[in-house]
Amino acid sequence: MRDIFEAELTQLGEDLAAMSRLVEHAITNAGIALLTADLALAESVIVDDAAIDAIEADIDERCVQLLAQQAPVATDLRVVVSSLRVSASLERMGDLARHVAQVARGRYPRHAVPQSMAGTFAEMHDAAVRVARRTSTLLTNRELALAESIEADDDLLDELHEDTFTALLGGSWAGTPQETIDVTLLGRYYERFGDHAVSVAKRIVYLVTGVTSDDLDRSAT
Amino acid sequence: MRDIFEAELTQLGEDLAAMSRLVEHAITNAGIALLTADLALAESVIVDDAAIDAIEADIDERCVQLLAQQAPVATDLRVVVSSLRVSASLERMGDLARHVAQVARGRYPRHAVPQSMAGTFAEMHDAAVRVARRTSTLLTNRELALAESIEADDDLLDELHEDTFTALLGGSWAGTPQETIDVTLLGRYYERFGDHAVSVAKRIVYLVTGVTSDDLDRSAT
Repeated sequence: MRDIFEAELTQLGEDLAAMSRLVEHAITNAGIALLTADLALAESVIVDDAAIDAIEADIDERCVQLLAQQAPVATDLRVVVSSLRVSASLERMGDLARHVAQVARGRYPRHAVPQSMAGTFAEMHDAAVRVARRTSTLLTNRELALAESIEADDDLLDELHEDTFTALLGGSWAGTPQETIDVTLLGRYYERFGDHAVSVAKRIVYLVTGVTSDDLDRSAT
Repeated sequence: MRDIFEAELTQLGEDLAAMSRLVEHAITNAGIALLTADLALAESVIVDDAAIDAIEADIDERCVQLLAQQAPVATDLRVVVSSLRVSASLERMGDLARHVAQVARGRYPRHAVPQSMAGTFAEMHDAAVRVARRTSTLLTNRELALAESIEADDDLLDELHEDTFTALLGGSWAGTPQETIDVTLLGRYYERFGDHAVSVAKRIVYLVTGVTSDDLDRSAT
């Protein structure tokens, strides 16, 4: 009985890591689609988001079954409850990648991001891809130093998000209202993407160390 | 033992309803602060959000304790897991009310929403307040007809959100970039507020009837 339960918990961890790799794939392709106005790539991200949603539903169902059948306590219970929350965060990260792709698709064949902001969004893309890759790795190997680098890149995403407002509100901004809307929403999508990754990272740190910070998950507000 | 557990589940339901009433209060005052440029009211919403966050943390902790101590199954388990999710949605709704208040505060003494869009945002405010009030009532009395009216108002919020884009992209929009940014983000905050309320409503319908729809919680993407 215990062996089966252990195997199920291990499988749960592997499935969360696999889900995270799909999110990594999604945000990578969404950003490339955005920066290169690649319609086919944008559409693939939008279509593939359903697979991430399906994994979330499956993980959630299995967590509830584990709670019902195994009545876990202590660390085991913490693993199951954390899995529910991590899958919810990953699902949202997948949605945000899809939202980026939807903006890219909506403006095709034009570039959604005007030339003057391309550099900022290229940096946001790089930071978001790093965040996603490290989240996948953290879920795989529980190497806690990764949590710190995820938080550092989240800080960078916040700064870049601020930069977009500075650019939009500077006297030299000459974009159309559509460009202003797109830059505003894209900046928010990337900023939220980072927040959710930090939320996942804090959950994993808590799982491994049992130590939480005062602001556990408050970062993802 | 069973009596104590029953009492704890009842208390959990009452606390979620109380949390929802704080959210209702927050979105009501945030909208009034936005529409009337009321700085003190905006600040009160921002400060009071901490209380909503604290209730979420408390409810989550008690849910985990109930899982550990009572090892609930069947309907009881469903109640506890749903409570975790409903509290997360309500916490996000509180954040979104705070975001609306932050925009109002940031533009004071000016109105964040230009006169030409005041009617649209007054309608969004009314719909969001109705949604919040019905969510509180649904959590209190489980009257399932309320779920339908919450979904109807969420549809209205989506339409009003579309209206903001139509106005921003129509040839007659003469707002500043700051106004374009504010209208874009405020519209998104209200739209997300409705999504989360629908998510809560679906959870309650599922709890009461055991029936889910294919798109359970997909609405809150």
